Amino acid sequence: MELDRTDAVGAIRAAVERCSNWGRWGADDVLGTANLIDDAKRREGAALVRHGRTFSLSQRFESEGPQKGWRRRTNPVHTMLDTGLDAERGQGFPHGLGGADDVVFMPLQASTQWDGLGHIFDHGRAWNGRRAGDVVTSEGDQLTGIETVAAHLAGRGVLLDVGRAVGVDGELPDGFAITAAHLRATIAAQGESAQVGRGDIVLVRTGRLTRARRDLADGRGWGDYAGGAAPGLSFTTADWLHGTEIAGIATDTWGFEVRPNEFDEAFQPLHQVAIPHIGLFIGEMWDLDALAADCAADGVYDFWLTAAPLPITGAVGAPVNPLAVK
Amino acid sequence: MELDRTDAVGAIRAAVERCSNWGRWGADDVLGTANLIDDAKRREGAALVRHGRTFSLSQRFESEGPQKGWRRRTNPVHTMLDTGLDAERGQGFPHGLGGADDVVFMPLQASTQWDGLGHIFDHGRAWNGRRAGDVVTSEGDQLTGIETVAAHLAGRGVLLDVGRAVGVDGELPDGFAITAAHLRATIAAQGESAQVGRGDIVLVRTGRLTRARRDLADGRGWGDYAGGAAPGLSFTTADWLHGTEIAGIATDTWGFEVRPNEFDEAFQPLHQVAIPHIGLFIGEMWDLDALAADCAADGVYDFWLTAAPLPITGAVGAPVNPLAVK
Amino acid sequence: MELDRTDAVGAIRAAVERCSNWGRWGADDVLGTANLIDDAKRREGAALVRHGRTFSLSQRFESEGPQKGWRRRTNPVHTMLDTGLDAERGQGFPHGLGGADDVVFMPLQASTQWDGLGHIFDHGRAWNGRRAGDVVTSEGDQLTGIETVAAHLAGRGVLLDVGRAVGVDGELPDGFAITAAHLRATIAAQGESAQVGRGDIVLVRTGRLTRARRDLADGRGWGDYAGGAAPGLSFTTADWLHGTEIAGIATDTWGFEVRPNEFDEAFQPLHQVAIPHIGLFIGEMWDLDALAADCAADGVYDFWLTAAPLPITGAVGAPVNPLAVK
Amino acid sequence: MELDRTDAVGAIRAAVERCSNWGRWGADDVLGTANLIDDAKRREGAALVRHGRTFSLSQRFESEGPQKGWRRRTNPVHTMLDTGLDAERGQGFPHGLGGADDVVFMPLQASTQWDGLGHIFDHGRAWNGRRAGDVVTSEGDQLTGIETVAAHLAGRGVLLDVGRAVGVDGELPDGFAITAAHLRATIAAQGESAQVGRGDIVLVRTGRLTRARRDLADGRGWGDYAGGAAPGLSFTTADWLHGTEIAGIATDTWGFEVRPNEFDEAFQPLHQVAIPHIGLFIGEMWDLDALAADCAADGVYDFWLTAAPLPITGAVGAPVNPLAVK
Repeated sequence: MELDRTDAVGAIRAAVERCSNWGRWGADDVLGTANLIDDAKRREGAALVRHGRTFSLSQRFESEGPQKGWRRRTNPVHTMLDTGLDAERGQGFPHGLGGADDVVFMPLQASTQWDGLGHIFDHGRAWNGRRAGDVVTSEGDQLTGIETVAAHLAGRGVLLDVGRAVGVDGELPDGFAITAAHLRATIAAQGESAQVGRGDIVLVRTGRLTRARRDLADGRGWGDYAGGAAPGLSFTTADWLHGTEIAGIATDTWGFEVRPNEFDEAFQPLHQVAIPHIGLFIGEMWDLDALAADCAADGVYDFWLTAAPLPITGAVGAPVNPLAVK
Repeated sequence: MELDRTDAVGAIRAAVERCSNWGRWGADDVLGTANLIDDAKRREGAALVRHGRTFSLSQRFESEGPQKGWRRRTNPVHTMLDTGLDAERGQGFPHGLGGADDVVFMPLQASTQWDGLGHIFDHGRAWNGRRAGDVVTSEGDQLTGIETVAAHLAGRGVLLDVGRAVGVDGELPDGFAITAAHLRATIAAQGESAQVGRGDIVLVRTGRLTRARRDLADGRGWGDYAGGAAPGLSFTTADWLHGTEIAGIATDTWGFEVRPNEFDEAFQPLHQVAIPHIGLFIGEMWDLDALAADCAADGVYDFWLTAAPLPITGAVGAPVNPLAVK
Repeated sequence: MELDRTDAVGAIRAAVERCSNWGRWGADDVLGTANLIDDAKRREGAALVRHGRTFSLSQRFESEGPQKGWRRRTNPVHTMLDTGLDAERGQGFPHGLGGADDVVFMPLQASTQWDGLGHIFDHGRAWNGRRAGDVVTSEGDQLTGIETVAAHLAGRGVLLDVGRAVGVDGELPDGFAITAAHLRATIAAQGESAQVGRGDIVLVRTGRLTRARRDLADGRGWGDYAGGAAPGLSFTTADWLHGTEIAGIATDTWGFEVRPNEFDEAFQPLHQVAIPHIGLFIGEMWDLDALAADCAADGVYDFWLTAAPLPITGAVGAPVNPLAVK
Repeated sequence: MELDRTDAVGAIRAAVERCSNWGRWGADDVLGTANLIDDAKRREGAALVRHGRTFSLSQRFESEGPQKGWRRRTNPVHTMLDTGLDAERGQGFPHGLGGADDVVFMPLQASTQWDGLGHIFDHGRAWNGRRAGDVVTSEGDQLTGIETVAAHLAGRGVLLDVGRAVGVDGELPDGFAITAAHLRATIAAQGESAQVGRGDIVLVRTGRLTRARRDLADGRGWGDYAGGAAPGLSFTTADWLHGTEIAGIATDTWGFEVRPNEFDEAFQPLHQVAIPHIGLFIGEMWDLDALAADCAADGVYDFWLTAAPLPITGAVGAPVNPLAVK
């Protein structure tokens, strides 16, 4: 598929015509592709626990994170209400009790997160065709707040380690657009356990986080991990995202899509199709490295995945500590 | 076991002598009873998925929550950085893209949460005998921050619905102290699937949240759900908590322990034994009602439980959306 | 002036017709009645410093404040980033240096504050006739943010101690509507120094805060200081507020206006005239007690007043520590 | 005075011996040099209002500020609870009322601020000889919280425009250490109105903010304004700060002192003398440019200054919008 770099609007419109799920689960639907995970899928996922090894796929939430304040997206600020030092000094509790307590201020997209269905709009329309302003006001997402999927996002996970399958030394370069062909090649290279089907949650490793970590270790800081150039999904994968009927997809990058984006003066055009039209759950900034190493070692690429977002009422996205169990 | 209401200090000291796990997993241990969950336990847990039904055990994180500001523990405040209304008006993005984004300020114990091992101290000592002030400073928990168990807290969960087994109409009254005898009676009443063993995560339902919800529905508000009188674990269960070798335990109450506490002028004395000495992970404000109804219906009380805390670096506790799958 | 309790809309419309300042300072104006304070007024104000005594008119900003979470208006939460305890333990600074540092999370209307011109709208219209949504978006007030008056709100202040002049034991009862007649009677009772003119900032003491403090001292807490019944300005004072050409007015109450409001099912109708139409700066929750005692003692009711709001860019209101100097 | 770059500890100790004010205002003192502002000084200050021109000396509090997250000092994050867009859509208020409301999260040293007396310690000692940990705990500054000077910091201000008097094109280069000789030369150059005496608040302009603004205008961002190299007070001015008996001093820089500091591996050594030993109020990040231009134009360098900090209970520093009136 050839993209006309000058016509993002046209390309988006065409993709929407091919891929829209509006109305598919009724006019009142608030779950989008989370509808595609059923009990059978979760049984299938649980059956994949063969060893009991767990992998937290979350980056840490901390002030030393990659955010640089774009659109007020800062790193989390964690402060203490009480500490062990206060306890040693005496806090007024009886019988020698001491306590520590804490608080956090954080943008919900600061670190590992799910985008909710109210996160992105297309020409003022939210998921299922609703007016953006009828859904998300200053009081939050009135309909598709992340709490609606608090119990849904768990089932079979599949890792597509495109970095290893297609890249060099396990990493794709910045600006590399992952196409459906790359995804299919990765599946083919990884074998039977990497087949992707209806209701699966797909994790795409690009190696971008591996690279950021190397930069950090070398004293160069996070660089442009948050918002800068990165490998990621090509706009052309909209049809694959729709056709496979996956329930969710996450990457180890800030922005899911390839960056710079594939159109002139564009910004995250695949989001504009995937979230409001496909109703797809997109995860960003997931840490897939330890899981990927394990999958490369044993050749098994599917696993139980729990990725239950923190149910902040009305949130248009939410931090999550996804857990993969093999 | 008879408690001398006037001698909390003595009772705590005696319980510590019987129940301490200091040194059990080495001088450097930072995991406490999370050590008791092994791969076999997780395989056992995953094998309990028979239907694929999921239950989010998290209350919502919202400004309408039960907190009243005690020691600066407020309810979460969720605000928007961008909304659908802004998107309709135009946000300066290209090709019709619009977006909503958000931020939260919340005490980490505001709603459903795990207490970390750095949350409570006994006479200035933290888990494994360390000085409280060496562990938790204003920069957070330097050793046992909740991120250390980001991948651990998943395995076999067992619901002990003490409210249904011992209470009236499914609820225990405020001030009801749940003893080991009550726990054993509940297990006996619930049958084989409710057996509790090494490495399990036990969920104790008292019915207190059910009652709070009824108050809310009747327009009386949360009342004293946060910090007021409540049923809960008796101080005398310290030996049961230690002897069963469970990995974690959570309740549907604010404070885990019975309140008012069982000693004169006491404050959460069981915490003082359980966290710094047993190294036990305690969950509070979990929502067990839907799960409990399902267990009562099918008579099966164990399930696959993932309860991976949000890994806020250095946190002495953390919000969590625990997921039970049956 | 007789109010028809059933017709808030009509009363507001009529008041707007009599009192509107739209266009008075040009179509581009962002200052409203702050235009009325000129250099001469500030010279007049400074000349009132006869003794050099200062009075901070600010309540404290703290978690023990009166807010109860209405519309997410909580009390400020102040937390430490570093403490003296950390300094004693060692913070890694050289040559024996230690430091403490801190952070605050607070609604801008949590305590003593100025309402900005973007705080209140009338039928979707902001100050000077602009569309509300053109002025205040999720990025804040684009035109009349409080920073625009960072240097303006200083001049001659006049205390009208209506509580002392009209009330019993210095306090007006809750629900007492202060009319223009009461204001005039207070001025007459207080004498020459209480004359109110163009560009003045008027401080109206009702005694409501005095009462709240007595409640606090008696262990009854703040009660309904924030949002509950209170004495305050009658809706009928709109013409006085407009005709006197004052630059600002502040009270010792949460809501400036009498509460309950004077119409059935109304909410702060005087705000709806005063802010978007008169362009008036309204201060709330000011602490006038110490100043009032001094004025009562020496019979002098005017003074040098600086009330420079914290210039948070785009804020629709801002905390302030007003300083009166006599 | 020659500094031995290798002996910060010795130099600090010697300066402390010469300059300590411990005990000067009694063992219970919590005001430090704020004691030096008396009613006569405020009368003197008010008499300086000759024209009525006001100057806000505050930078804006905003997410686009200079902070880079050092020790969790981020820029303020201002978010909306309600907006004009919500008002246009309908917020449920009666009679056409609409409202906007907002909230801020900010480190108290994020922008223009006063350091409180609990901000800096010397070898574990706070102002007046108290133990640091007895003064500032996780609950804030128990004794010298900024609220104690809520009504004090107003009086005669004097601008010393060292940038203009000593620098090139009105600016001192980064790393320039302002000595007492430079201060005296500036006073001499500025003339009679620049005499500094007991109880004055001195504002030292270096031109560093002017330079940062030029960088901003040229698209280079704030650079290292926060924490990087800058002109500032030499450590050797400790005696001048003490001997002049000034009540406070503020600069247009992040750190008040020259940076890099004048000792090897040092960090803010002058703070270590000035705050805990002299008890001096230090202001940072003040915006002196407009005031300085006015003073240069009319040759008058003293004025009325109100610099009343926001009285956040227990704060070790506080944001302020200082107002100079000439």
